[in-house]
Amino acid sequence: MKARIIVTLKNGVLDPQGKAIEHALGQLGFGGIGDVRQGKYFEVTLSEQDPAKARAQLEDACKKLFANTVIENYAIELDV
Amino acid sequence: MKARIIVTLKNGVLDPQGKAIEHALGQLGFGGIGDVRQGKYFEVTLSEQDPAKARAQLEDACKKLFANTVIENYAIELDV
Repeated sequence: MKARIIVTLKNGVLDPQGKAIEHALGQLGFGGIGDVRQGKYFEVTLSEQDPAKARAQLEDACKKLFANTVIENYAIELDV
Repeated sequence: MKARIIVTLKNGVLDPQGKAIEHALGQLGFGGIGDVRQGKYFEVTLSEQDPAKARAQLEDACKKLFANTVIENYAIELDV
């Protein structure tokens, strides 16, 4: 089973990388694109076939490895 | 208008970061999660209100800044 994990900074957490991209966009003439926030994206393959168990496993992995839950949110999308 | 951009490595391009995560997952006891590929994720806000024009603008920005199209693919999702 395949899954996607998206990790984003929580609201209010500063995102200097996003700001740098915003600045670069402005210099390239894309003034209409603003408010850039950068996150992380992971594609994983699971041996677990049961969606509920797979999700539980990924939740656990997100908390322990993929995301820093103090400053980041995570979203899990399963390909069922 | 809000949009999400997902940039992923093309098939066949080595992903040492993904391999390192896979290894770490194994050591944490998540042996069932494998084949990890890491990508990038961006949330942007556009002043453009027309979806077709917004998408064209983002396509252009992806080619020029967000993705290295030699080794990366990009996907654009508009919140309409």
